[in-house]
Amino acid sequence: MIGRLNHVAIAVPDLDAAVAQYRDMLGGKVSEPQAQPDHGVTVVFVELPNTKIELLHPLGENSPIAAFLERNASGGIHHICYEVDDIYAARDKLKAGGARVLGDGEPKIGAHDKPVLFLHPKDFCGSLVELEQA
Amino acid sequence: MIGRLNHVAIAVPDLDAAVAQYRDMLGGKVSEPQAQPDHGVTVVFVELPNTKIELLHPLGENSPIAAFLERNASGGIHHICYEVDDIYAARDKLKAGGARVLGDGEPKIGAHDKPVLFLHPKDFCGSLVELEQA
Repeated sequence: MIGRLNHVAIAVPDLDAAVAQYRDMLGGKVSEPQAQPDHGVTVVFVELPNTKIELLHPLGENSPIAAFLERNASGGIHHICYEVDDIYAARDKLKAGGARVLGDGEPKIGAHDKPVLFLHPKDFCGSLVELEQA
Repeated sequence: MIGRLNHVAIAVPDLDAAVAQYRDMLGGKVSEPQAQPDHGVTVVFVELPNTKIELLHPLGENSPIAAFLERNASGGIHHICYEVDDIYAARDKLKAGGARVLGDGEPKIGAHDKPVLFLHPKDFCGSLVELEQA
């Protein structure tokens, strides 16, 4: 079912510092910051040859990463995103197997304008998993 | 400097359960468990089209992931590994920029029989970064 690793998302408390670390220290190819107010984050993409890293910084009230950054003041890896061909088929298979889909269980339009859903970390090795219909 | 994302490593408290989650629930292509006593872990590889996930379980005394699992009982994303062409050049650039290389600062032979080093999480957005000479 799962295909490519679409991205690894890292929540960062200081976006300028994170850009400096990835661009200047690690020599990564980083994008300009992109505000995504509908998703409560500002994102910087680090383009790697085979996938990408997303540096996420809270934007506005009720950012979905605010609580994570309260618990992890230095930042940290927030989630990993796998691509699937059919998000509804994936959802049905996972629910039938007992996995918990976060929220109301329905796919939403994610930050890349594609349908996504998130799975409960406790069902997947303590790591938050996003599935995105590629 | 950084090239491909070589792998994402997830520390897991129960390897059989992790395999079931990734193979049976997510439909991933998982390897047989591979004991790596020199590195204090048993590893299951989840092969994705563009990279891999490594499910790490402690092996023996003094496993490098034991303390992490004490803090994260359900498991969690332990580190991300980027490939570099020249590990010594990478080390020198990072040290010159003020980044902390863990241990004695010298590359070691990693689990893939290639030279690796680890960077201090506080210098890289709270996430443990491994560099591997590809």
